[in-house]
Amino acid sequence: MAVTVVGSIAFDAVKTPSGERERMLGGAATHFALAASFFDTVHVVGPVGDDFTDADMAILATRGTDVSDVERVAGGRSFFWKGEYGWDLNDRETLDTQLNVFEHFEPKLSDASKAADVLFLANIQPELQLDVRRQCEAARFVAMDSMNLWIDIARDALVRVIEAVDCVILNDAELRQLTGKPNVLTAAREVIAWGPSVVVAKQGGYGAALITAGDVFNIPAFPMETVVDPTGAGDTFAGGFVGFVARHVDSGLTRDVLRNAMAYGTALASHNVEEFGTERVERLQPGEIHARVADLADMTRFDAPALDLRSASGQPA
Amino acid sequence: MAVTVVGSIAFDAVKTPSGERERMLGGAATHFALAASFFDTVHVVGPVGDDFTDADMAILATRGTDVSDVERVAGGRSFFWKGEYGWDLNDRETLDTQLNVFEHFEPKLSDASKAADVLFLANIQPELQLDVRRQCEAARFVAMDSMNLWIDIARDALVRVIEAVDCVILNDAELRQLTGKPNVLTAAREVIAWGPSVVVAKQGGYGAALITAGDVFNIPAFPMETVVDPTGAGDTFAGGFVGFVARHVDSGLTRDVLRNAMAYGTALASHNVEEFGTERVERLQPGEIHARVADLADMTRFDAPALDLRSASGQPA
Repeated sequence: MAVTVVGSIAFDAVKTPSGERERMLGGAATHFALAASFFDTVHVVGPVGDDFTDADMAILATRGTDVSDVERVAGGRSFFWKGEYGWDLNDRETLDTQLNVFEHFEPKLSDASKAADVLFLANIQPELQLDVRRQCEAARFVAMDSMNLWIDIARDALVRVIEAVDCVILNDAELRQLTGKPNVLTAAREVIAWGPSVVVAKQGGYGAALITAGDVFNIPAFPMETVVDPTGAGDTFAGGFVGFVARHVDSGLTRDVLRNAMAYGTALASHNVEEFGTERVERLQPGEIHARVADLADMTRFDAPALDLRSASGQPA
Repeated sequence: MAVTVVGSIAFDAVKTPSGERERMLGGAATHFALAASFFDTVHVVGPVGDDFTDADMAILATRGTDVSDVERVAGGRSFFWKGEYGWDLNDRETLDTQLNVFEHFEPKLSDASKAADVLFLANIQPELQLDVRRQCEAARFVAMDSMNLWIDIARDALVRVIEAVDCVILNDAELRQLTGKPNVLTAAREVIAWGPSVVVAKQGGYGAALITAGDVFNIPAFPMETVVDPTGAGDTFAGGFVGFVARHVDSGLTRDVLRNAMAYGTALASHNVEEFGTERVERLQPGEIHARVADLADMTRFDAPALDLRSASGQPA
């Protein structure tokens, strides 16, 4: 039941209202793997440079993640992203992006990575996502992320990827832009018409919505007073969501499996933002995740009462 | 158990992607009353002009709402607001605001309005809210709304109102601005420290959060593919929320009462946006509201499973 993830392994420099870090381990594949490894064996596929140390690799390998497909490019430097978050953490400015070894990345998957039951195509060039999708013929559940850049400059290729996956995880602005539909529910149903059976609309600090042909489910972000660094929250969510599905892939994409996957993704994302980069999720314990999922279930639950409402006559109906 | 509401009764002109209306009945007190009247007798207090017809008054009086404190100002014109919504309905531009009879409004409450158990101070000048609050000494539950304008130009008076109410209903940007706290949960707890026991943070199309000293509850907006006109959604939410509390004021502000109030407010707001102005809620039936509340309960529910997660060793914990 292993999970393969293909995406960026990066160094991030980030400034938030809580402080700053010059160099921390980041990238979509990293955050995804740290979360998904709670559920299953993860194979990480992506390039790094000479600047990627054994200590960095050890973090990536947390909870037994297989890093043998992490390609060290001699003479290269790792992907680098620098950004700064505003006062209320709702917006961020990218100050620098250096593709470095990612510029000429050609995904080479080992047999073990190709054989995984579950595949996550993190946000990379759609042509590369399609290439990896084709290498993983055995995959029974394939999920993907993307971003506004690819909708702008490579929409046709992106749509071909979407047609070849089971689950699309995008934020609601991306879903609107992708489909040209201003309503997120309509946009999600358009995407489902292209092939996938599951759409997850991420809503940043507000939570996420799950849309399938037969279900709509909403879950809020876990409310917390201190958010240190939102970087990687979306990929950590994806890691929890896809990891949970991977553990239950034999029972099929039932409504309960997908809803619980949303809860575990949300719980993991909320832990991720408690500290900088991967710091918190590295040492996170299973009991902490379960407790947060239980809290989420509690803080969203209500039992509608029997109640006489008044009708147009002004009297109880 | 009657509810008194003091606020604007207006004519709105609105343009949305679905169409436009030149003159429709609106205003915070109107939308509030149309929703709250499902739960209890509502007394509406506010001024209108000569342009306010008997047909308009009949709509305001839907479900037995008492309009005897609606003051007709001879020679005056009703409050007028004109606005236009953007593509995805997430932002709106105010094109015109004419206070008209509202400019010299001095709330005069009948004994019946003063005697209500529950009071809602819709978004008006804080000094007027405080005046009304003092006239309603019998009120056992007082809720209020406000807006960024009053935080900008009358913050001291606004804080005095907040100190004198039980429940503050604001959107999350207003809560941040009011308290200077970028985190909504922290902002809500700051407001609770000023006196109120309940804070509702409205999140527009994303739903709303309820914060008390002992509870945090989140509910999404009801997902819908067609939103015709968001005008009045917040006041309709408040009408459902406060109306539900009014029906249960004898049992106290229990966790269940407040959570269910959030659900009824959310259901009513979702109906409000289905058509222009008050068109939909005027003819709404109790069964439609109950059905939507039941749908909301269903689409937010999950039952966290027992699950072995892997620990740092890579093995199940």
